[in-house]
Amino acid sequence: MAGISLNEDCNHYIVSRRHRELTAEEVERWVDQYADTQVEELVLNVNAMRTCYDSRVWESFWSGYDPLGGNDQPFLAGLPEEARELRRQWVHRGWQLHRDGIDLFERWIARARERGISPWISVRMNDIHCVDNELDPMHSTLWRQHPELRRAPYKFDDWADKAFDYARPEVREHHFRLIEELAERYDFDGLELDWMRFGYHFRPGFEEEGAAILTQFTADVRALLDRWEAKRGHRIKLSARVASRPQTALSLGMDAVEWAKRGLVDMLVVTPFWATIETDMPIELWKQLLRGTDVTLAAGIEVLIRAFPKSALRQMNTLETVRGAASSLLSRGADRIYLFNYMDSDTAMADLDNYNELLCGAGALETMAGKPRRHIVTYSDTWAPGEAAGFQLPAACPPGRFREFRLHVGPRPEGPAYLYLGVLPGEELSGEVRLNGVVCAAEGVAELAGPRPEGPVYRFRIPEEAVHGGYNVAELLPDRETTVIWVELATS
Amino acid sequence: MAGISLNEDCNHYIVSRRHRELTAEEVERWVDQYADTQVEELVLNVNAMRTCYDSRVWESFWSGYDPLGGNDQPFLAGLPEEARELRRQWVHRGWQLHRDGIDLFERWIARARERGISPWISVRMNDIHCVDNELDPMHSTLWRQHPELRRAPYKFDDWADKAFDYARPEVREHHFRLIEELAERYDFDGLELDWMRFGYHFRPGFEEEGAAILTQFTADVRALLDRWEAKRGHRIKLSARVASRPQTALSLGMDAVEWAKRGLVDMLVVTPFWATIETDMPIELWKQLLRGTDVTLAAGIEVLIRAFPKSALRQMNTLETVRGAASSLLSRGADRIYLFNYMDSDTAMADLDNYNELLCGAGALETMAGKPRRHIVTYSDTWAPGEAAGFQLPAACPPGRFREFRLHVGPRPEGPAYLYLGVLPGEELSGEVRLNGVVCAAEGVAELAGPRPEGPVYRFRIPEEAVHGGYNVAELLPDRETTVIWVELATS
Repeated sequence: MAGISLNEDCNHYIVSRRHRELTAEEVERWVDQYADTQVEELVLNVNAMRTCYDSRVWESFWSGYDPLGGNDQPFLAGLPEEARELRRQWVHRGWQLHRDGIDLFERWIARARERGISPWISVRMNDIHCVDNELDPMHSTLWRQHPELRRAPYKFDDWADKAFDYARPEVREHHFRLIEELAERYDFDGLELDWMRFGYHFRPGFEEEGAAILTQFTADVRALLDRWEAKRGHRIKLSARVASRPQTALSLGMDAVEWAKRGLVDMLVVTPFWATIETDMPIELWKQLLRGTDVTLAAGIEVLIRAFPKSALRQMNTLETVRGAASSLLSRGADRIYLFNYMDSDTAMADLDNYNELLCGAGALETMAGKPRRHIVTYSDTWAPGEAAGFQLPAACPPGRFREFRLHVGPRPEGPAYLYLGVLPGEELSGEVRLNGVVCAAEGVAELAGPRPEGPVYRFRIPEEAVHGGYNVAELLPDRETTVIWVELATS
Repeated sequence: MAGISLNEDCNHYIVSRRHRELTAEEVERWVDQYADTQVEELVLNVNAMRTCYDSRVWESFWSGYDPLGGNDQPFLAGLPEEARELRRQWVHRGWQLHRDGIDLFERWIARARERGISPWISVRMNDIHCVDNELDPMHSTLWRQHPELRRAPYKFDDWADKAFDYARPEVREHHFRLIEELAERYDFDGLELDWMRFGYHFRPGFEEEGAAILTQFTADVRALLDRWEAKRGHRIKLSARVASRPQTALSLGMDAVEWAKRGLVDMLVVTPFWATIETDMPIELWKQLLRGTDVTLAAGIEVLIRAFPKSALRQMNTLETVRGAASSLLSRGADRIYLFNYMDSDTAMADLDNYNELLCGAGALETMAGKPRRHIVTYSDTWAPGEAAGFQLPAACPPGRFREFRLHVGPRPEGPAYLYLGVLPGEELSGEVRLNGVVCAAEGVAELAGPRPEGPVYRFRIPEEAVHGGYNVAELLPDRETTVIWVELATS
């Protein structure tokens, strides 16, 4: 069985538990929902620009917070008034845990071990949530006071412009100090360097020299963990989250293959950033690149799903769409399914009733076989500066010419399978549709439960002999000008 | 020194020599222009759908041709009248060589060896020139009489739809027989399987099973060459031309990495198809994939240059644009520069006066150092069916927002360097331009000698400290809506 890694965002935990005081017992109980599932690793995120424990080397989320100060206190003054109440409750919960001597990570690590789950710590290497508001109390003093340490101080088109520049030694030292503290403070099985929060670590045009810098940084972390292994008496693994496609990862300064070949990492998580689950990550390519290493290749699955970058819909994945992606990625050779933002509340799959079934099924082809699944064309949301970004959708399809769509469906679907094509609102779809060259029967406008496109979606019955495992090519020969915005192959 | 491989299209040779009878001596003299240059291998193409020698297993280009029949003979009847004279002369030259007992490849192979160049034979595995006219006498009887052997018989949007389907054993056997004959007939140093003429070998959606088929085919060819090695008493190498990007190659059924890892190939040529030179092929990624093998990685350079797919200009590369591409590709780790369609006449670089300088310089960084070179953003012209194709240009740039462009320039340019940005005809460019974050000085509209865009192009002086080797990122912050269609960094 491949298994699941599950990432828990510490801020998710405290914000979702903001309404009442937490006890040590309740904190520990959080782990239990993952016991006896396919979750192999709980990957416990400890930070954004601040930490969710009482750090000696970084500010914590509650550094500067006055628990008696109400919403008008200086700590919250940088926020718009309407945001203060929520933030106060959220930070207060972190503060309360600290006050009561409850260290989230210490408790979770211990409990995870008791329940047979491997505990990991994850460090976000360049978190830039909310940097449009420089006064937000989430931010660190270092970041706020040193704009010259940022990667593109001459512009602000995007949060990423304000990310730290890892070419600056101060930035690397700042983050290394946190890692040193974590290694001393917590007895974890593995450490994850999360380079995908947020993915941009160098000045535009300096990613290549950046690659050497991040490789050295990774080597330094590995050396640190080597020393702690001796003290702890057990192996301490190292992992990294990197961009989903090898060339993009490298062009962003993440030379993951080099890390693997040099034996610096035990696991790599290839992943989109956030805007959508990426259903067509080039897993075979990663596996070819990692040949000759023992590195575990984890396929990162995000919670949102979009068919194209400008899609205005904000939809979450469901059990069936995750099954689709996970079946495909595992069949292509992924060793793990890595769930990010699949938490137990708030930031969560759309059909949270199915959470346990997800945790008990999405980590193995065997446990998904024969169950309903949806394979939806999405896209890569992360590209290096200036990289030639490509997207299947939207696809403007002139009449009288075949338009091809490519989608990977994992193992050959059992039983009936359908193709769904969605078009822009107000448009109609008519024409010939083929799958792998075989004509499919039009069944008219369909209703989709769960994620769906902005406009009407049409269903086509796929003749049983036409569908196969792996990549399938759907073709549309439209009668009239049509813009396709959704392509899906589903088993029910 | 990396060196150059040069591909000669047999049809180029006979069409360009159509006006007078060829002697054996003149045929042999063709080789001499490549002696004492950086050309390490002459890669001699022998076929399209027919052969340019008197084959026992395939039709030759002159099979069915009557040398006394004039332009109205049945052989030419499938052509429009205005095309017959040229074709007759062309085919006649092949026939004349045959009549006179001059075998091009036998002569060239022998002469190349005498002149210290390694002779190779190249087989186009699926040539589909002119398939819009099924009656063209270039086509083989097998192809013409068996449309059911084609990859997409239900459509004809593109020549590639009429390519042979290699999933059909008859197709593989047909081509294997040719290779068997070549191995018996000619004593070459290496055989190239040219999968990029034309790159599409399977029904849409069947490329994955196709990959296993082509790997087996490659293994069969390797086994054949092994047997001939014993008879010839020397090593016979095997090479393949494949799509420029690993994921696309694999998605087209070309599992080049598997061929390399299994020891089936000695060389791989990664290349665009035809529409443009591809200045940003992911060479580092290929090198990472080929680690642990002895495979020579050749960077394929085509003769046309376009900045984006719909560019209506048909421009050829020049010494300076090839220097740009070759410097970049060699600095990224390519072991060879492979010139395709860089012939001595007709299909040739724009400034053919510089041919010898190209042949004596483009194969090594040392011989290009300090010489003028142009680095131009182009694109990948080959994608698997339905693959999410990405292009840097054209780039619609709204005002007030930075737009990034990425270009690889090889070793750090010595001396002054300029950035050129071209916009649509009728547009003006104004705004801030940066390279690697440093503001560049606008120098107004410029004239480019050699390849240039459809509209005006603007020159910016790059401050000396701003440019570096490898990837550079150019940024434009336009004052007004602008569509950038050309991005270039040049050393003069």
